[in-house]
Amino acid sequence: MQKINLKNKLDMIDDLWVPRIVGELNGQYVKIVKFKGEYVWHSHENEDELFLVLDGQMDLCLRNETVTLKQGEFYIVSKGVEHKPTADKVCSVMLFEPSSTRNTGNVNHEYTIEPDDLETI
Amino acid sequence: MQKINLKNKLDMIDDLWVPRIVGELNGQYVKIVKFKGEYVWHSHENEDELFLVLDGQMDLCLRNETVTLKQGEFYIVSKGVEHKPTADKVCSVMLFEPSSTRNTGNVNHEYTIEPDDLETI
Repeated sequence: MQKINLKNKLDMIDDLWVPRIVGELNGQYVKIVKFKGEYVWHSHENEDELFLVLDGQMDLCLRNETVTLKQGEFYIVSKGVEHKPTADKVCSVMLFEPSSTRNTGNVNHEYTIEPDDLETI
Repeated sequence: MQKINLKNKLDMIDDLWVPRIVGELNGQYVKIVKFKGEYVWHSHENEDELFLVLDGQMDLCLRNETVTLKQGEFYIVSKGVEHKPTADKVCSVMLFEPSSTRNTGNVNHEYTIEPDDLETI
């Protein structure tokens, strides 16, 4: 195990909506990802998902409200809850979720990456 | 579920070495804690533990090395690995770990708080 510097890892990412694994513990992954624009509505049947903003600002759209997250703020989307991340400008996010979590959940989409195909950086 | 602002939660803490729960997902807790001084050597038999520095700097002493963590850096201590956090000045830390995790692991100490007695803030 090496220590992980989140800023250094974020500097390695120049694409959007592609989560990378930066840590693994207890069957969970720590991932980082850059958001800009609008993602796809989806839900995760079996996994709660934590979004922590590392830099920038995002909106986490839920069906009955929109949660705005700024740097140092997090929100946990419970399993089964539909959500759609959006961001006006590039927003860097840390995710904490089970290693089984599929990025677009129950939806097949051009952004879909199967859990086994995720890159570790 | 409400969004969590980590700085606001840290401002509620004025003691040392007492972890508080700020989130729960998939059987894991997100905790925050302030460190200063020297903790106790311990290990967790069944739980990996992630330390992410939110503010300040800490040393994570392992038996064969010392890992210095600054703001935005994290380290995962694997189950069974002895460790001892220390910090010269107050350091604010986020922990990710299973809800079963006992703060002093296999050791009984004045700092011990049983998992069921942890406060949520």
